[in-house]
Amino acid sequence: MKIKAGIIGATGYAGAELVRILLTHPQAEIAAVSSVSFEGKKLSEVYPSYASLCDMECKNQNEAVEKSDVVFAALPHGLSQELAAQCDKAGKAFIDLGADFRLESEDEYKEWYGGEFLDKDLHKRAVYGLPELFRETIQGEKIIANPGCYTTGAPLALAPAVKNGLVGTEGIIIDSKSGVTGAGRKPNQGNHYPELNEGFHAYKVANHRHTPEIEQTLSKLSGKNVKITFVPHLLPVNRGIISTCYARLNDGVTKEQIRKVYEDFYRNEFFVRLLPDGANADIHNIKYSNFCDISLHIDERTRTLVAISAIDNMVKGAAGQAIQNMNIIFGLDEKAGLLIVPPAF
Amino acid sequence: MKIKAGIIGATGYAGAELVRILLTHPQAEIAAVSSVSFEGKKLSEVYPSYASLCDMECKNQNEAVEKSDVVFAALPHGLSQELAAQCDKAGKAFIDLGADFRLESEDEYKEWYGGEFLDKDLHKRAVYGLPELFRETIQGEKIIANPGCYTTGAPLALAPAVKNGLVGTEGIIIDSKSGVTGAGRKPNQGNHYPELNEGFHAYKVANHRHTPEIEQTLSKLSGKNVKITFVPHLLPVNRGIISTCYARLNDGVTKEQIRKVYEDFYRNEFFVRLLPDGANADIHNIKYSNFCDISLHIDERTRTLVAISAIDNMVKGAAGQAIQNMNIIFGLDEKAGLLIVPPAF
Amino acid sequence: MKIKAGIIGATGYAGAELVRILLTHPQAEIAAVSSVSFEGKKLSEVYPSYASLCDMECKNQNEAVEKSDVVFAALPHGLSQELAAQCDKAGKAFIDLGADFRLESEDEYKEWYGGEFLDKDLHKRAVYGLPELFRETIQGEKIIANPGCYTTGAPLALAPAVKNGLVGTEGIIIDSKSGVTGAGRKPNQGNHYPELNEGFHAYKVANHRHTPEIEQTLSKLSGKNVKITFVPHLLPVNRGIISTCYARLNDGVTKEQIRKVYEDFYRNEFFVRLLPDGANADIHNIKYSNFCDISLHIDERTRTLVAISAIDNMVKGAAGQAIQNMNIIFGLDEKAGLLIVPPAF
Amino acid sequence: MKIKAGIIGATGYAGAELVRILLTHPQAEIAAVSSVSFEGKKLSEVYPSYASLCDMECKNQNEAVEKSDVVFAALPHGLSQELAAQCDKAGKAFIDLGADFRLESEDEYKEWYGGEFLDKDLHKRAVYGLPELFRETIQGEKIIANPGCYTTGAPLALAPAVKNGLVGTEGIIIDSKSGVTGAGRKPNQGNHYPELNEGFHAYKVANHRHTPEIEQTLSKLSGKNVKITFVPHLLPVNRGIISTCYARLNDGVTKEQIRKVYEDFYRNEFFVRLLPDGANADIHNIKYSNFCDISLHIDERTRTLVAISAIDNMVKGAAGQAIQNMNIIFGLDEKAGLLIVPPAF
Repeated sequence: MKIKAGIIGATGYAGAELVRILLTHPQAEIAAVSSVSFEGKKLSEVYPSYASLCDMECKNQNEAVEKSDVVFAALPHGLSQELAAQCDKAGKAFIDLGADFRLESEDEYKEWYGGEFLDKDLHKRAVYGLPELFRETIQGEKIIANPGCYTTGAPLALAPAVKNGLVGTEGIIIDSKSGVTGAGRKPNQGNHYPELNEGFHAYKVANHRHTPEIEQTLSKLSGKNVKITFVPHLLPVNRGIISTCYARLNDGVTKEQIRKVYEDFYRNEFFVRLLPDGANADIHNIKYSNFCDISLHIDERTRTLVAISAIDNMVKGAAGQAIQNMNIIFGLDEKAGLLIVPPAF
Repeated sequence: MKIKAGIIGATGYAGAELVRILLTHPQAEIAAVSSVSFEGKKLSEVYPSYASLCDMECKNQNEAVEKSDVVFAALPHGLSQELAAQCDKAGKAFIDLGADFRLESEDEYKEWYGGEFLDKDLHKRAVYGLPELFRETIQGEKIIANPGCYTTGAPLALAPAVKNGLVGTEGIIIDSKSGVTGAGRKPNQGNHYPELNEGFHAYKVANHRHTPEIEQTLSKLSGKNVKITFVPHLLPVNRGIISTCYARLNDGVTKEQIRKVYEDFYRNEFFVRLLPDGANADIHNIKYSNFCDISLHIDERTRTLVAISAIDNMVKGAAGQAIQNMNIIFGLDEKAGLLIVPPAF
Repeated sequence: MKIKAGIIGATGYAGAELVRILLTHPQAEIAAVSSVSFEGKKLSEVYPSYASLCDMECKNQNEAVEKSDVVFAALPHGLSQELAAQCDKAGKAFIDLGADFRLESEDEYKEWYGGEFLDKDLHKRAVYGLPELFRETIQGEKIIANPGCYTTGAPLALAPAVKNGLVGTEGIIIDSKSGVTGAGRKPNQGNHYPELNEGFHAYKVANHRHTPEIEQTLSKLSGKNVKITFVPHLLPVNRGIISTCYARLNDGVTKEQIRKVYEDFYRNEFFVRLLPDGANADIHNIKYSNFCDISLHIDERTRTLVAISAIDNMVKGAAGQAIQNMNIIFGLDEKAGLLIVPPAF
Repeated sequence: MKIKAGIIGATGYAGAELVRILLTHPQAEIAAVSSVSFEGKKLSEVYPSYASLCDMECKNQNEAVEKSDVVFAALPHGLSQELAAQCDKAGKAFIDLGADFRLESEDEYKEWYGGEFLDKDLHKRAVYGLPELFRETIQGEKIIANPGCYTTGAPLALAPAVKNGLVGTEGIIIDSKSGVTGAGRKPNQGNHYPELNEGFHAYKVANHRHTPEIEQTLSKLSGKNVKITFVPHLLPVNRGIISTCYARLNDGVTKEQIRKVYEDFYRNEFFVRLLPDGANADIHNIKYSNFCDISLHIDERTRTLVAISAIDNMVKGAAGQAIQNMNIIFGLDEKAGLLIVPPAF
């Protein structure tokens, strides 16, 4: 019998991407989709690409929770805490694609998101769902905080070096470039086609909410209190994030050592592809898939590690990773439903 | 046991797309890939998006044929005839994504392609693989001429009206717009990014080789000798073809009649989605999938039917349809391996 | 002394483009800009590309009219009639980039726009500002209806053939493809970057308001009551319109005859570039300029003329042509301020 | 009388851009264009956008030099030294858009370009043409090394802070993103439309030839031997470079101090636009123009200055700056011919 999945916020971009992937998952099925804005409408009316594949009607939230074994929440930040409590009570697994459970420190949550932890116990039980780094803490849990997009790609690029003390944890710089879907489905002037097309710019420089989340992960890996400089940019493409990460090499660390540590670290990780020397991670090669491609570069002149990761912000950076987490907590093959071949063009 | 598929010309765009789809086909597997330009290289060196999914080495053609039950040929026009003969002798099914077997008239082949039918008997046994229109003639055959991209979308848009005599067969105009992958992998000035990006133009106006192939199909459907005006354009997108087809409505034909005929014609065709009134076929909604979306529009002021189809030129217009043909001739479910959900963005 | 130009609706796309061109006009200067949405704001706050070049503040409409010799109105349809009357009273020249004065028939205006002619006398005095076709009626006038974008490119492509009776006036088909700026500055779901990028579709098929305007022009040229089938599409580029126009060649008309008639017709028109045989009109080559490139193609098999025009919808299709009209009515060199070199990329 | 300009290498992208700008320069005119690949062809055959504006025929190099007062060389690296000598002998001003004269150190030239200084005296007399930083050394000179694209935008972003000692000169990181025209007119696999569109990647990481040139400029400004980490990326747009530059703030330096120093530094520089706090430099706003937009951002958490510049790589990063240099050495208004309004879209 297949796992019944409910998607709350199914008509947003992350929700729509959950639908796309779950439709071909061999061991799960979509039990219900829910949407406040489109309740009563067929999903395929909102996304005509799904016509004849998913003509389900958008239900209200309660109905969707009831019908499901696992609930995916793809909601604006702040709306997941109550839903998590509801799912918890009803014995449903809960995977949150929003930010409510990502930060462990309530102070940081207040500072960056302006909200509070409504139920501190629930927050303690929530685990951070970045499987390649924290798989063992995810297994068997039922409340999963699915990482944000920038907060998946950048830490994966730096993790082996940071964890193994090959680089300094001061002065780390993360220069990220994201496709437009990261900003969601709602039109605004900044995403209006003629103003973004043939344009490129940074935004929320040193001020983006994913900053403390990346720091939390790197701090855990290093055992130190890491502070980073994080600058996101908006790419005129639909999907994909490149994170170009800069860290100072510790004395004596060699190029060969860096490569060996990365190879060992990711040897058994299907979704992380460490590229050969000379290659450059490219969003072109991971689009629509759950892969994270990483390329390594050493600037000997300045003793700097440049580690570059490429992910699809809507897959490994959202829906794909959420399903990877579902697979883990339900004891399925972690790759189930995620063997999506990134198109060559 | 899975069907063993060989791909000749695997490093061209159509070949690469066959790889993408076959990698997740439940009843077929890639037995061998072959490439003249990249013999000895791994496919994933040419297309890094396939790394860890298809690291097979490109073999020579003979080796690939030998290992296969079915051979897909994605070769420049003119190179398939000998290969077809070789496969035929060896008892392999042969699906040609090139043009060598598409035209039934050797005269037309000479006129438009400048070549000859090397083995006329082989040509007689070849069938034209547009399943929605000619399924019954495909079943049980072993030499399949897979239609070209324009020659799939435009006929599907017009077929119900033409076959049922609702429109005049004189003065049909097909104005098509294709994504750039249709021109293949080889770089040239016209496909150089800065010259194509933010550009748009027609090419081979009233002069494109797909013209006689479309006419052949429409003539078969109508029983008349149909001549069309065909103008293709180059769209600054990777994939997708819109064909806007114009035909004069016969006297007395109503909008409702048109819709009913189309609905009946395509009722059982999974891969053709007839859009509701008011919708417009959009390449956005069929990308990466084997769907052909069709929207119908009536210009009462000029008594003109405007039927618009959208296909992915590399899937329904090439690799996907080839696999659909494989499914048919091997007696599989026609949808096997082709349940690809077109992404919502 | 320079001509003082006022721009009403300066923060819309057509208004912003008027600003761009007028800023380098040798014999005109921007006296005032006006905007309802941004009154009191600097234009360069709305369009940062103009910073340090045009930091004028948006004033109210009356102030702008008062300061000007010529008033350009780039307003939503329906708002120009009263402004025209106001300018007329105040003795200002008035150039309307909206639709209010384009159609001569009030019945057609009602049918397609749902409004009325408020002052029928004013409408009688308004002239249609397509200089290459109606220059002599423009000279000396003060109320100019500047044509729409589709209604400039398509008639220019067909005019020589239609006027000289080389093609039939029945069954003319105009298949146009427009860049996104044609839909204006206001964001909506259809122009949201991720939904339009890598997409392409028709819209308002056989139902677009520019239809009667094109017919009006072709009818004047031919002396017959011309009806056309007009299908616009939305291109994923910022600027440019290709109109692919199909008309049946009259008996005996030759390719050479067509070319000669076009050459004679446009010999002295600086802004129309008739391309050599074999070339294809491309929006790439006219972007940001006031040129209309035309390529001619004959389908001998079906006796069809395919005339293709490329214009920049915001220049020759809006602001550039408006300034061309200003030059004409003020007796300046028609090219003044419009010697913009279309970039090679 | 107008200055006579000759363009050697006129059919490459930088050459074509020189043509575009010079065509509207009020005090200069194109005397001759030269091209090895297209000798004898009209420039408008290579770039149809220039038809009727520049139908000059491409001549050989000697003829072009002879007819000119100033020679612009837009040649592949290595070919300018002999041409410079030829011009010098003939008493012509010489502005080199290639790299031959940019580096003062022959050792560095050897290391990064593999060549030698053929005539050391000529190299001594060559000046580096970045007017905003080195104007006084340019005036009156006749051999100008026009900076590369990355080497204009990044130093302009950092110059005020580096020159005034507000930031550390160790650990400077420059993360740049360039449009595709930077790679020139010649098609290759990497610039093939379908492989670059919807893609994004770094290239020549910590290995790009512009590295020593940027270091040379920053070293001059600071009086120290500056080493940088420089990582360029390829943006799927035609034009524009964003350079996101990271430098550590020295102790006690405040946000206000940074802004004041930048304002003072660029107060009289027409082509540098210092954006207000909160704005982000965007290539959208400088396209086709000679502007360099700079936005300033302070990361107080990590005491890092993030200075971001946006230039058009083909204008301020090539042809526009070359003409700015011409204006300087001929004693014209520095803005002559460069009052190009960047389009709002």
